Amino acid sequence: MFPKFTVKKNTPYGRLGTIFTAHGNISTPSFFFCATKATIKGVDVWTMETLNTPVILANTYHLMLQPGAEVIAKSGSVGTFMGWSGPTYTDSGGYQIFSLGYGCVSQEIKGSPRSGRYLKISENGATFLSYRDGSTWCLTPELSIHVQQALGADCIFTLDECTPYHISYEQTRASMEQSHRWAKRSLTAFLKEDAPYKRSYQGLYGISQGGIYPDLRCQSVDFLNSMPFFGHGIGGSLGKTSAQMREVLDMALENLCPERPIHLLGIGKIQDIFDGIAKGIDTFDCVIPTRLGRHGGALIRPHYWSTAHEAYHSRASINLLKACFKNDHRPIDETCTCPTCQRYTRAYLHHLMKSKEISAGSALTIHNVFFMNSMMEAIRDGIALNSMKDVRLQWVGD
Amino acid sequence: MFPKFTVKKNTPYGRLGTIFTAHGNISTPSFFFCATKATIKGVDVWTMETLNTPVILANTYHLMLQPGAEVIAKSGSVGTFMGWSGPTYTDSGGYQIFSLGYGCVSQEIKGSPRSGRYLKISENGATFLSYRDGSTWCLTPELSIHVQQALGADCIFTLDECTPYHISYEQTRASMEQSHRWAKRSLTAFLKEDAPYKRSYQGLYGISQGGIYPDLRCQSVDFLNSMPFFGHGIGGSLGKTSAQMREVLDMALENLCPERPIHLLGIGKIQDIFDGIAKGIDTFDCVIPTRLGRHGGALIRPHYWSTAHEAYHSRASINLLKACFKNDHRPIDETCTCPTCQRYTRAYLHHLMKSKEISAGSALTIHNVFFMNSMMEAIRDGIALNSMKDVRLQWVGD
Repeated sequence: MFPKFTVKKNTPYGRLGTIFTAHGNISTPSFFFCATKATIKGVDVWTMETLNTPVILANTYHLMLQPGAEVIAKSGSVGTFMGWSGPTYTDSGGYQIFSLGYGCVSQEIKGSPRSGRYLKISENGATFLSYRDGSTWCLTPELSIHVQQALGADCIFTLDECTPYHISYEQTRASMEQSHRWAKRSLTAFLKEDAPYKRSYQGLYGISQGGIYPDLRCQSVDFLNSMPFFGHGIGGSLGKTSAQMREVLDMALENLCPERPIHLLGIGKIQDIFDGIAKGIDTFDCVIPTRLGRHGGALIRPHYWSTAHEAYHSRASINLLKACFKNDHRPIDETCTCPTCQRYTRAYLHHLMKSKEISAGSALTIHNVFFMNSMMEAIRDGIALNSMKDVRLQWVGD
Repeated sequence: MFPKFTVKKNTPYGRLGTIFTAHGNISTPSFFFCATKATIKGVDVWTMETLNTPVILANTYHLMLQPGAEVIAKSGSVGTFMGWSGPTYTDSGGYQIFSLGYGCVSQEIKGSPRSGRYLKISENGATFLSYRDGSTWCLTPELSIHVQQALGADCIFTLDECTPYHISYEQTRASMEQSHRWAKRSLTAFLKEDAPYKRSYQGLYGISQGGIYPDLRCQSVDFLNSMPFFGHGIGGSLGKTSAQMREVLDMALENLCPERPIHLLGIGKIQDIFDGIAKGIDTFDCVIPTRLGRHGGALIRPHYWSTAHEAYHSRASINLLKACFKNDHRPIDETCTCPTCQRYTRAYLHHLMKSKEISAGSALTIHNVFFMNSMMEAIRDGIALNSMKDVRLQWVGD
């Protein structure tokens, strides 16, 4: 029965659909917020609900170390554990392990040293040291599925190897083949009838690989199509720039089975979301909107860019830490109906940031979550009403 | 017109009244939460509202240093600045300056060294260094009134000298007389017609002194009664124990003009509140309920003490950091209707505390605020219905 996916409408600006889960329906295109340790940092779950949040995505890696999969299973699922009654996703835990091992993409691009000593990859899985107590863990495809079944989210992902950006064609191919073998093992574990935490309502996403290489992307798509996954994740390197991302998406989406929902992992910039949707992506997840909020950033729409002082914004957001907001007694956005813009001024948010009050990050995260949810709703309306050019103009500015 | 105070009922268990302010009425007895830097740490102002919070008390000392009184005056008042439409109080700033200088009472009782070098008291006022940038400030009675008029709370306090606990009779007398002279100067400044931030709706509280000495307490009461203050604050040392506090309250309340509201500064323990109300106190403020929440403590009622494991509680609260809560999938209190108890379990709150997630402190603060507001409502009902013995049994346990 669950989960199920239907497409209502296909357009050159994106497609409209619904993912039906045991915990509610997800209208697509949709953006998922990351609750790394089973909480959206600084925002109560009942507030996330009033902001019309569709889905919360939790992290297998963090939760298997603290509080442990068994504690969450005893509470029911990661949804019941965190008091969230709507749909949930979990990732496989791979991304976090490989980030720890290789460093994140930005570190890599900047050439920061990598701490590879914390990570050993073998055919069996990825061996790493717990960030909590230094104990040794080996995350295998089977363990990732076991933990994700214990966590009991509506949709889960296969474990894949997340390679650094700058590896060669040969390394990308070898890694892709390894990820394919892991995907097969994941599916076998997932389908096992007598698994201790088997959940009848769960769907499994496979993840495509192949980096920036067209023939590898093509092979990976063929592989994914041949396996009975519920959904497809787009993984592996998407290149260095937004332009390269669009090229890679063309490769990764060509021939991909159109009956399955397609998730783009870790992408959260406004323009990239519009571009991804136009290519056919259904869902996204990223820490950007919530992390930005905690660091003083508030997402704003392009009609503010021109009127605002140059120093106000960079990349579609204003930084409330800047001194120019000290006596700015307007809300972040006068047209925004989020709780933060209804009650708080820029001057007040600036004061809270300067005072290092946690209420600041919380209020800015609330604005950014509302912003993203409103934008995704506008996009769905835009596709339904064939007005995506206007919607893009209002949210991207070009 | 505002503020005004009326007493509806006097009983041996406390009195019922109403403080009428320009921003709403305060039913007394009432407990005020401290928004030190113009925010209840970790809780949005709209959440404070849904928890039926009567009053928010902000700190003159912190706000005059950051963002500065002028910024807040430009926004309207400290209430409008923080998006709070209900009644507000500010303290004089004295307590914080003297805490910095002398150390807090608990440090003093423990014999920790005091950092008196940061503080110089003269007839003129208290000279101190800003915690923000090390600049030198002199808080005079006139400056405190000026800043509190700029902040524009409904009720404000005179600057008094907050002496350490262990000073002699002679020192206490000298300090009391100094505070009385400051109170006179405060009142003169407050009544000045052409003050730059004069607010017609503000009321001024005088603060009684005299430490633990009956004759000094008596002199201070006579002094306060002779001056046209709107309300009375009980200041100075209240002794070392709850028993001594009750004795000092007897001295400090005897003969105190019964037409004025009486505020007990910095008291927030459950039993002390019941005892204070029985003596005739109308309002309290204290950081205990909110600070306790941020450190993992949840207030619980006595009916839980007997059923709960011994390790669970100390001083009417449970510490969610304790390992015994790891798999405790019940709410903090099954009979509590606060948002936290409706959604979160002890196991989840334990996990959030262990993960150092700020949502933990926020959720526990919400529970504690709701707890205090519910308790004060029960007390008001208890006085109205002559059932205070039962109410005390339900909330204090004896």
